[in-house]
Amino acid sequence: MNAKAGPSNATDREQGDVFMPKFDSSGLITAIACDSTSNEVLMVAFMNAEALAKTQATGFAHFWSRSRQSLWLKGETSGNKLEIADILVDCDQDALVLKVNPAGPACHTGARSCFYRKLDHNSAQGDVLVKA
Amino acid sequence: MNAKAGPSNATDREQGDVFMPKFDSSGLITAIACDSTSNEVLMVAFMNAEALAKTQATGFAHFWSRSRQSLWLKGETSGNKLEIADILVDCDQDALVLKVNPAGPACHTGARSCFYRKLDHNSAQGDVLVKA
Repeated sequence: MNAKAGPSNATDREQGDVFMPKFDSSGLITAIACDSTSNEVLMVAFMNAEALAKTQATGFAHFWSRSRQSLWLKGETSGNKLEIADILVDCDQDALVLKVNPAGPACHTGARSCFYRKLDHNSAQGDVLVKA
Repeated sequence: MNAKAGPSNATDREQGDVFMPKFDSSGLITAIACDSTSNEVLMVAFMNAEALAKTQATGFAHFWSRSRQSLWLKGETSGNKLEIADILVDCDQDALVLKVNPAGPACHTGARSCFYRKLDHNSAQGDVLVKA
């Protein structure tokens, strides 16, 4: 298939070899950072086109902060940057997985991963969190 | 800390033991399904409160389809259900990781994971996809 001949249809998006990230109505795409060695999900954030371009250009994860409405280089203050090993895209190209080599804890709380709690199976109400 | 005394503040949300998922302005939360054995990200979708409740009640992943505007049991048609092993929540409780035991390929294309392509490091334009 020559995806470049008609890159706009769903088949090309799913099966083609051309990267055409689908940003949502706010101009954002979901980006999931995973440890390149363990595959563990470290954090989830959003990228706009500029954050994605800077990530590709520099080799370090950049995101768009919805709360601050600004571009941020992850780890710019803390030093805990996420070095990009690989960027994967899903079938309909509206989500990315960043395989990363983290310089330190990915979570602002100091945890290795932001996902440091899980639902307790033994909770009758189903709403109690325990250490993951 | 007794999170139940004041579960609405940011500290309780980040450090407490009460599950209080933060749905966005559309009533949705991001849910990342990962293989419970390999940690590999299989797919990303969204849940509304009903999808989350059904997931917890049945032990199988349910999502909200934004395109179809309806609740769906993942694998209802294909049989490729995602059995829940664990549900993790991130620091600010606006994203979930579902550790799952998949009954078959998670992607509608037949791929094990929706993330079956990655950016080619050797592409000068930075926009060529290869097999992940």
